[in-house]
Amino acid sequence: MKVFLASGTAPGAGFLLALFVMLVAAKLMAELFERLRQPAVAGEILAGVLIGPSVLNWVAPTELTNSLAEIGVIFLLFTVGLETKPSTIFKVGKRAALVAIFGVIAPFVGGWLLMRVWGASGIEAMFVGTAMVATSVGITARVLSSMGVLDATTARIILGAAVIDDILGLLILAVVTNLAAGAVNYATLAVTAALAVSFTAFVSLIGARVIRRMTPGIENLFVSHSFFVAGLLLCLGLSVAATYIGVAAIIGAFLAGMAFAEASEDKPTMHQQMSGVTEFLVPIFLVNIGMQLRLEVFRDRRVVALALLITLIAVVTKLVACGLAAWGLGWRRAGQVGMGMVPRGEVGIVVAQIGLGLAVIQQELYGVVLVMAVATTLIAPPFLRLLYASEETRNGKLIDPVGLTDD
Amino acid sequence: MKVFLASGTAPGAGFLLALFVMLVAAKLMAELFERLRQPAVAGEILAGVLIGPSVLNWVAPTELTNSLAEIGVIFLLFTVGLETKPSTIFKVGKRAALVAIFGVIAPFVGGWLLMRVWGASGIEAMFVGTAMVATSVGITARVLSSMGVLDATTARIILGAAVIDDILGLLILAVVTNLAAGAVNYATLAVTAALAVSFTAFVSLIGARVIRRMTPGIENLFVSHSFFVAGLLLCLGLSVAATYIGVAAIIGAFLAGMAFAEASEDKPTMHQQMSGVTEFLVPIFLVNIGMQLRLEVFRDRRVVALALLITLIAVVTKLVACGLAAWGLGWRRAGQVGMGMVPRGEVGIVVAQIGLGLAVIQQELYGVVLVMAVATTLIAPPFLRLLYASEETRNGKLIDPVGLTDD
Repeated sequence: MKVFLASGTAPGAGFLLALFVMLVAAKLMAELFERLRQPAVAGEILAGVLIGPSVLNWVAPTELTNSLAEIGVIFLLFTVGLETKPSTIFKVGKRAALVAIFGVIAPFVGGWLLMRVWGASGIEAMFVGTAMVATSVGITARVLSSMGVLDATTARIILGAAVIDDILGLLILAVVTNLAAGAVNYATLAVTAALAVSFTAFVSLIGARVIRRMTPGIENLFVSHSFFVAGLLLCLGLSVAATYIGVAAIIGAFLAGMAFAEASEDKPTMHQQMSGVTEFLVPIFLVNIGMQLRLEVFRDRRVVALALLITLIAVVTKLVACGLAAWGLGWRRAGQVGMGMVPRGEVGIVVAQIGLGLAVIQQELYGVVLVMAVATTLIAPPFLRLLYASEETRNGKLIDPVGLTDD
Repeated sequence: MKVFLASGTAPGAGFLLALFVMLVAAKLMAELFERLRQPAVAGEILAGVLIGPSVLNWVAPTELTNSLAEIGVIFLLFTVGLETKPSTIFKVGKRAALVAIFGVIAPFVGGWLLMRVWGASGIEAMFVGTAMVATSVGITARVLSSMGVLDATTARIILGAAVIDDILGLLILAVVTNLAAGAVNYATLAVTAALAVSFTAFVSLIGARVIRRMTPGIENLFVSHSFFVAGLLLCLGLSVAATYIGVAAIIGAFLAGMAFAEASEDKPTMHQQMSGVTEFLVPIFLVNIGMQLRLEVFRDRRVVALALLITLIAVVTKLVACGLAAWGLGWRRAGQVGMGMVPRGEVGIVVAQIGLGLAVIQQELYGVVLVMAVATTLIAPPFLRLLYASEETRNGKLIDPVGLTDD
């Protein structure tokens, strides 16, 4: 197959075939997983494991697939930001913030402790802890929306908390990456953290207003699809800015999306154009993740045991900590919130990839984090369905006694 | 600036910055050109010349920009195909075919002759001739639509002929590429040509019907945005297939688009999702074209003279040959058709790039072809406006005495 991939007469035929194989595999597995009522994301990662060097060895990660994957994850985070109106978060703000903070501290400490006990270095332990922090807004939103409960108070708390989680997780990543980059320099570290926090605060507080004011001007430009193009440019621009500040490019992309969230609310074209880009590039990101997994690391029983333990800790810490933070809503709703926060998905994996790229974590820990991210994503949906299905409904609508919803 | 590009802490920060600079430059120049009522395409190519090694040297073509550009041109040709319903061409079929054939032979022979007289090798002459063949459907369609005359008989003839031109041009490219690839082997050449023709005929005759029949099935798939995803997969799949047959990937992409043209007619979402991909990747293709131009080749007066001569021949041969083929419509309409066929745009440039990639043509000829492609694109629109504006109108609509339009 490698020979097959390398042939073809036109220049670049090999990489076109690789892209084609990656997309076909991703979409076949996505279709299969959706039919089994499992998240497509998990199927697409598995597609990468299958066609990658671990199993079939049809396609291997190259500099090009890595670059396309990075562009893919940047636009993925942009679209997640695009669905994150600051105002929606502010509405369930206090409770969501509490859930988010509990849900960041517990997994980080849990993961870090387990790794230290296991004998890992401090920086490895911190990377694994960081990878366990962020709840996947994308997966959670998709599961809640497929159950038709997006308007429930608990769903709003989950999404709000997941977003705050993402921001906190990415900030922790900024700090940890800085720690990993060289000798610990607390002054630099403080500067980076301060820069990251001010950058986040500045863009999330000012961004939406600036974009709203500029929207008529942008739409009057002569250049075609100017609103979408402006979104692309801000997304890339803030991603680059983020890297210069010393934080991950995806933070910039996420903030750019959030800045466009309100202005693009009544613009379905913008969302469809973004979905065109993400439907093409995100599967490449997910397949590329799977392709980087070396299944042989699991021949070592210790690695398997660690993966299971980390997954267990990842589920229990989020479930208990977030559930506790939402205890005032009653045990069932607390359970919904806790379980809704369990899926880790893309951000955890990005953390693992950055760790792998910096050579801070090795193939074994990358495999462990990948198992944790995929397993938490697969575990949560069926329980969420149970927790929401058993709730009383009136006229097919959830009864919402807490009354935090506004419609 | 090179140092600046290489810094940034996160992996890949350099290429993100390069993409950002390319997109910003492209869109600024596009905006400027649109305001000057010039085609945005020319502005985006010029943006590449400006930021490229020839002038500012901010960004240089790399393997990654080349790959992204190739994906971009593939999706560009897919969207051109998407707007090419086989039925529309069949309606003005005979006249359009005549215009197309005249408009292929004259520039090819003209270009080839001039190059031979100039002292170029046979294969160089053929590459330049091939680059002069194909009329740019994209640019022509955009100019005609901005004048509101897309429904005029002449506009339909122009578009139909431009499409046939593209197909003929790409077939000639297949043959010439094969000639260039090694010693002339007429058996292989015949096989390639036969394969290319059958591939084109097969997909354009059967493709639309197959896709139309499969559309309900595709839309019932569980995978999200399944119709768009199917389009992506066919586009990449036929591009890869084309390279294995021995023709350019863009032929496959164009045919894939044509197969989806009818089925996607009433699906604005599909078009918007494709526009998301092309708005991101086509500027990278165009900027990358400009970045590959070495302006210093024009220090040689002979190169400047050749560029001017080739441009002159490119304009005159298309204008006269296509005008003659449309003479029965009266001189003004014949002029509209002739002038409408002049812009070369993307396909000519792709031919030049393939020639450069195969080392069949050198920097000098690449520059000459680029000047020809951009100049013909800039020359035609003002004359077209004159030729259509002076035509009699009734109630603001063109009088169309030929009666070939159906609405």
